[in-house]
Formats: sequence, structure tokens, C-alpha cells
Amino acid sequence: MASGAGPEIERLMALLSKLPGLGPRSARRAALALLKKREQLLLPLTSAMQDAADRVTSCHICGALSTQDPCATCADPARDRTMICVVEEDSALWAMERVGAFKGRYHVLGGLLSALDGVRPEDLRLTGLMQRVLDGEVEELIMALPATVEGQTTAHYIADRVRQIAQGVQVTYLARGVPVGGELDWLDDGTIAHAFKSRR
Amino acid sequence: MASGAGPEIERLMALLSKLPGLGPRSARRAALALLKKREQLLLPLTSAMQDAADRVTSCHICGALSTQDPCATCADPARDRTMICVVEEDSALWAMERVGAFKGRYHVLGGLLSALDGVRPEDLRLTGLMQRVLDGEVEELIMALPATVEGQTTAHYIADRVRQIAQGVQVTYLARGVPVGGELDWLDDGTIAHAFKSRR
Repeated sequence: MASGAGPEIERLMALLSKLPGLGPRSARRAALALLKKREQLLLPLTSAMQDAADRVTSCHICGALSTQDPCATCADPARDRTMICVVEEDSALWAMERVGAFKGRYHVLGGLLSALDGVRPEDLRLTGLMQRVLDGEVEELIMALPATVEGQTTAHYIADRVRQIAQGVQVTYLARGVPVGGELDWLDDGTIAHAFKSRR
Repeated sequence: MASGAGPEIERLMALLSKLPGLGPRSARRAALALLKKREQLLLPLTSAMQDAADRVTSCHICGALSTQDPCATCADPARDRTMICVVEEDSALWAMERVGAFKGRYHVLGGLLSALDGVRPEDLRLTGLMQRVLDGEVEELIMALPATVEGQTTAHYIADRVRQIAQGVQVTYLARGVPVGGELDWLDDGTIAHAFKSRR
């Protein structure tokens, strides 16, 4: 990216282009926007990132990114301690929280089992999850994992291990079917077949 | 964006979503990538932004963003002082420098005349440009402005003013025509008509 903008701006563009969703061209646009909106954007974003770097850590119970440990959800006495919602990443946890339908606690695996990418059970936050199941408070484990091969493999692996150590714990899965507002014509065949089989 | 991620992470996501090309969803993905890649991404990007905030300024001659004043291009004795390439923004300057075909100097207007957006001549970096023209070294002014109504209005306005103060200065425009690799079938009619009229 030899642009004649000087090494500082080049470095800023190169690092911005590593963000997901930004390529070299949009990283240049983002760098320009930052430099042109110094007071409104560059300085506040720099300080927000410095704050995040200084203060954000992982909750030792559920693994969620948080500025406190335990995180706000784990520390909240109003949240139902009998239910754990198992998610792949913080982004899924944030999505569940935006919906606001779930009042239990979470467990962030930090990935999914994948033979292809060489992700094994010991690479995920599984020991902590099994410990939480063994502690005896948990009655239901909700698998909010992606509807992909890796997501389903991981869900089945966890369900198997839970069955071995705690028969009383129920393992449930998010329902599959037609998304709200979904047109049948635009849906893949697998989803339609699943929605038909699971009709109520 | 109530996600339960805590105010620091919410603020980071809100500021990231103000970058061009990032909406709320991609800002969440970017925030998550930053927080998960603390050492490789969050810390280097924070320091690059801090560097940029501390050191990047505008060249007092051409208006380009730079860490030195005058900028590297204006200070370079090897660059042709008889040609000035007039661009809207630094991004256009960077694009010209990537191409490497131009060995003169630049002038960054910082915008385009626009009745709709209320951008008047005094809002652009025009006084400095006229001063450079009056200084007598300049022989050619190359209008590398967008092929839009605003771009062309601005180019004509500048050409008019230059004609009034310095008859000897030639004003040229980037050629219009079929882009390299362009299929006629995909081009708009205006471009094809232009390319036909300007055939050589």
C-alpha cells in the first residue's frame, strides 16, 4: 500500500484492514475518516480501545468478555442459576441478551469442535462447563450453537459428556424452522424439511 | 445495542459503527475481533491511532495529511514544481501515488462545491491554490476530480478563476473513456458516448 501518506498512516491502514469486514480499500476510507474526524472519532475511539485493553477480561465462571470478574450476568442474583445457555462466542451471548428472552446464565465455549481446523475438546472452555454441571445447581443446558456441522458436532459431544456425569440435567436445543418473516421460496430445502417434520 | 457486554464494550462498538463501511453488526464483529486478538490487533491498532492522533497534521502548502509540514511530496526537490494535481481528498492523492504516473505536486481541496450540501468556494482550500498559481512556478493544473456534477462544477470554477489571474497556466482534465478491462456491455451510455467522441 505505497500511498505516499507516510509510515504512520500506512501502519494505521494496514492494521485497520485486519478488522473483519474491512479490506484494503475500506481500511483506507476508515483511516481517512478517522484522520479527518479527529475530535469526534479518532480520539474517542482511541480512548475506548485503550479502556477496553486495560479493563476487559474474561469471566472465570462463564468465559464471557467483561470488565468485571465474575461478569455482570454471573454476579446477578436475579438470574436463574438452574439454566445455562451454551454459546460459541460472545457475539452469540450478546445476541441472546438483545433478545432478552433468556434469564439464566451463560457459558462461552470460545469455539467449536472441528476436525478440519484441528479444534479438540481441550481447546474449548469445557472443563469449566462440566464443573458447573457437577456443582448440582444446573437443571437445564440450552445449546445455542450454530446450525452447522461443527455446531451440531459440538452440541452432541457436550450432551454425551453431560449424560455421563449428570443424568438429571436436561439438554435442550434451539428450535429449527422457518425464520420469522421468512419466505418459503427463499429458504433452503433442509430448513423447509425440518420445519415440516417439526410442525406443531 | 443493549447486549449485556458492559459499558466499555458497548462504547467501543458504538464508535466502531461510525467508521465508514461498518454498520452495527460489523462493528460488533470488529469489537469482538479486537477483544479476542488483544496482542496482535487491539494493542497495535490503539498505538497506531494514538501515533496518528499525536503526529498527523495537514501540510500548509497542499493540505495533504502528513506527519511533517511541509509534507514529503511538497518537500521533495525531485518532484516537478511546474505541475499541480488538484484532488478532492487525500484518498485521491493516495490513489494517484499508488499509480506512480505523476511526478508533480498536489493540492487537496478538502471537498467539492455543492449547492445541495451548501459547500461554497470559501469552504475549500482554494485561496492557497490560487496563491500557488500566482507564485509563477506552476505551468499546468491537472484536475483529478470525480466525474460527478460536483466534481465538474468545481473543476470549471477553478479553471475560471485560474484564467482570470494567470493566463499562462494550462488547465487539464483526466481523460474520460472506457476503463481498462471494461466491457462495453457493462458501461453506462454516457461513458460510451464520451469514449466515442474522444476516439483517437
